[in-house]
Amino acid sequence: MAALSTTSGVSVPTIKYYLREGLLEPGTPTGPNQADYRDDHVHRLRLIRALMDVGGLGVGAVRAVLDAIADPELSLHDLLGVAHQALGPPPDREPVPDDVVRARGEVDAFLEDLGWEIDGSHPARRALADALVALRRLGRDHPAQVFEPYAEVADHLAARELQTIPSESRGEAVEGAVVGTVVFEAALVALRRLAQVRHSAARFAAAGDERRRQFQ
Amino acid sequence: MAALSTTSGVSVPTIKYYLREGLLEPGTPTGPNQADYRDDHVHRLRLIRALMDVGGLGVGAVRAVLDAIADPELSLHDLLGVAHQALGPPPDREPVPDDVVRARGEVDAFLEDLGWEIDGSHPARRALADALVALRRLGRDHPAQVFEPYAEVADHLAARELQTIPSESRGEAVEGAVVGTVVFEAALVALRRLAQVRHSAARFAAAGDERRRQFQ
Repeated sequence: MAALSTTSGVSVPTIKYYLREGLLEPGTPTGPNQADYRDDHVHRLRLIRALMDVGGLGVGAVRAVLDAIADPELSLHDLLGVAHQALGPPPDREPVPDDVVRARGEVDAFLEDLGWEIDGSHPARRALADALVALRRLGRDHPAQVFEPYAEVADHLAARELQTIPSESRGEAVEGAVVGTVVFEAALVALRRLAQVRHSAARFAAAGDERRRQFQ
Repeated sequence: MAALSTTSGVSVPTIKYYLREGLLEPGTPTGPNQADYRDDHVHRLRLIRALMDVGGLGVGAVRAVLDAIADPELSLHDLLGVAHQALGPPPDREPVPDDVVRARGEVDAFLEDLGWEIDGSHPARRALADALVALRRLGRDHPAQVFEPYAEVADHLAARELQTIPSESRGEAVEGAVVGTVVFEAALVALRRLAQVRHSAARFAAAGDERRRQFQ
């Protein structure tokens, strides 16, 4: 287990925790306090860390995704659904406020106008409605159409992404779909922030320096 | 405070917690156990909730962003920097593994090739390198250029976003910049997942049904 920890960069207590939680299969016992771990274990640990560190998934969500990857009956489309469920947001627990109900209806109509046929219970529908509600509660009374430019680029990226998933080997494809969803989402978010900095420097940094000079 | 809780949809214990943490100013006392809260408080509470619920910020990060919004000396560009710091990832705590160091160098070169002039310590640089490392550790040995299509759309969106921030009133502009970063990021992520579902349905759902039939 010490060797597995060194190779994977995951600490021994964390590996023990994953074993207890059933995220990782036990190694083949080779002695009273020894077990043999193979490359499979290293790969599995890295997949778990990617889902947790990059995707922000909790233990329960990781287990759901790993179970789905291991289930040969699931289509890639189903698997993507499981990954998206794991990414959240979690199902409603409290009575849903009126403005959220309204926003969800508007998001549904917006997606229908786009011609996107998507399961009505997909969690990202709720996430999109939550974003609309957050804007409105802060006095920015946008219609759902404010998301149109985002839908356009999202559609462009997703079409490209789905084409690059290999469809020959299921093992490759399912992991590729999950990793792609989680890792490239993180990359997209990071790049948008970097691009904002670049454009804000052009527009606002000079103005700020000017303002500071006026204050002095 | 009960009225503030009803209007804002934030529970009384949570409001008390924000008061203790200094995220919210105390109301004007009107009696031994009474205080007057104004519209400012409702708005502030909604801003805090948007940063926490939609942006996933913790209390410390919210405080940093609110302080930055309140600081008239900060340019909008500086403010965006504070918001991005708050969004993470947090600074390195452990020795940085070799593959991460290497990926950071490649990300820096990639951004330079794009012609994006961005502060070398911006946290999203580290996030992008982490994404590259996660791919490689899972056996997907991509160069940083794999992010090129994402950089392209991110740049397109950011240019658009920075243009729509009003520059006349600082109060409006600073909040708009922060809210826009956080809320539209959540919307973009949600829309990418929805678009993936739509395209995966076209490509994989039928194949899965086929496979299931073969198994029966």
